[in-house]
Amino acid sequence: MSFTVTILGNSSAKPTPKAHPSAQVVNFHEQHYLVDAGEGVQQQLIRRGINPLRLRAVFISHLHGDHCFGLFPLIATLGLEGKRTPLEIYAPAPMGEILDYHRRYFWDDLPFEVKWHEVRTTEHRIIFENRSLEVWSIPLRHRVPTAGFLFREKMPALNVDKFKIVKYNLSIAQIVEAKRGEDITLEDGTVLPNSEVAYLPHQPRSYAYLSDTNYSARAAERVQGVDLLYHETTYSANESQWAKGRGHSTTHEAARVAQLAGAKRLIIGHFSSRYKDPMPLVEECRTIFENTDLATEGETFTIE
Amino acid sequence: MSFTVTILGNSSAKPTPKAHPSAQVVNFHEQHYLVDAGEGVQQQLIRRGINPLRLRAVFISHLHGDHCFGLFPLIATLGLEGKRTPLEIYAPAPMGEILDYHRRYFWDDLPFEVKWHEVRTTEHRIIFENRSLEVWSIPLRHRVPTAGFLFREKMPALNVDKFKIVKYNLSIAQIVEAKRGEDITLEDGTVLPNSEVAYLPHQPRSYAYLSDTNYSARAAERVQGVDLLYHETTYSANESQWAKGRGHSTTHEAARVAQLAGAKRLIIGHFSSRYKDPMPLVEECRTIFENTDLATEGETFTIE
Repeated sequence: MSFTVTILGNSSAKPTPKAHPSAQVVNFHEQHYLVDAGEGVQQQLIRRGINPLRLRAVFISHLHGDHCFGLFPLIATLGLEGKRTPLEIYAPAPMGEILDYHRRYFWDDLPFEVKWHEVRTTEHRIIFENRSLEVWSIPLRHRVPTAGFLFREKMPALNVDKFKIVKYNLSIAQIVEAKRGEDITLEDGTVLPNSEVAYLPHQPRSYAYLSDTNYSARAAERVQGVDLLYHETTYSANESQWAKGRGHSTTHEAARVAQLAGAKRLIIGHFSSRYKDPMPLVEECRTIFENTDLATEGETFTIE
Repeated sequence: MSFTVTILGNSSAKPTPKAHPSAQVVNFHEQHYLVDAGEGVQQQLIRRGINPLRLRAVFISHLHGDHCFGLFPLIATLGLEGKRTPLEIYAPAPMGEILDYHRRYFWDDLPFEVKWHEVRTTEHRIIFENRSLEVWSIPLRHRVPTAGFLFREKMPALNVDKFKIVKYNLSIAQIVEAKRGEDITLEDGTVLPNSEVAYLPHQPRSYAYLSDTNYSARAAERVQGVDLLYHETTYSANESQWAKGRGHSTTHEAARVAQLAGAKRLIIGHFSSRYKDPMPLVEECRTIFENTDLATEGETFTIE
């Protein structure tokens, strides 16, 4: 069951000839979720072979232009492409008002519904879920109300060990009980603990997106054990005053969050345009959290 | 004195992996004027080596997203870049309201003034001028109020023929009179007609931008003798019904406008995404107006 993150853009606010502002696509079981939507995101989707019509929902962390100015042209294009099903948008207020005035001035004839769901950026709660996935809001500390997002796979159904089925000659009814996590009572009255016949095919996987934000130990707590963590690193370790003042993080702060969260892997981005070569920033993170890499535009990260 | 047009984008509304929506830069005597601002225009400017801080004014033909969604991120970036001088924007209503809500939601701390000047799309008049340039609005026929723009160089100052200065031993005062276009009276009373000593260094040059629009003979009249004409050609000659219904033009219609206007050269763009290869569209134009070329993204056209 696929669980990947494709980086469409990871630059900070000031544009460069090549890099695009924040946008990512989470592909969970072939359902695509857009996370932030910087300018040019619709073109970036097409470049990566992702049909914008296949987006299941959009999650916007905060209402700074470099995280959402690409959403409005994308919606206009979905209209031209004849989208009929609603587009679900999860974003902080006042996104509803902003969508309303776009409707008034630009989208009078949109053939589908744009459904805004308010993300309360002070609340840590499930904001989206389906049978196999839940998305949590993670309160962050930026200059405007901002939430990160945790994509967490739900507990997968138990598998029943084929050999045990034969060994204990289990009936269909007993297999169903075992899959439900119940213990099995055999004909001779012996009780098999569920763990004897059933097992978890794999641990539930998770991805966390934390941008933009000051260092937050609280956020680290809320993404405990995350498999893949994206954390902004706008500044190098020696510019913590800049980071603090602008509501951003340094390399060392991002690495400490990964360490505190017990993350398996950290990817970083949203570098200030002052850094021409990002590799020194990666190296700074690695002094604290070894398994750190660049969230390179165009790269796809698989959550195993 | 430079007079060039650089194509930043010339695709129609639906994005492709490579092509950008409508945007151009007119460079007149090293003053840069942005004409339309489709998504990604700020990045396109940087790619072409044009510093967005050097934009003298912006002209928006109409309020469809593929002609203006790049303006708002551009303004946000100019704020980050510390622009202090006002940005003059010439666009149809309700651009003023649209700029106001961007101010409210995105630009609370913009360090410069954004000055909107309403372009009345039913009026053919000078909307901008300085010592050497005037910009005229050209009413167009599209689905929403739309104006084209004519950039016309003012009559250059007369030059006085050096040999005549020697031959007639003209005084500074007489040279100044000649430059003003006056006849010269010599000491012996002979009157030299102005044309005998002064000449126009070159004919005033002009560039016209006509997009988006249905075929309009009226627009052709208003750009009579234009040196370089950009005209939209969203559809091929055999799809005139589509063109008519959608407020666009075919290749033959664009070529007829160039012919009627007595244009020296025609460049075309804004092709529907259905055309993978635009060259057949150029060929269709050439059957009516020989001197037709593609307004290729990234290309700069010089008005001699």
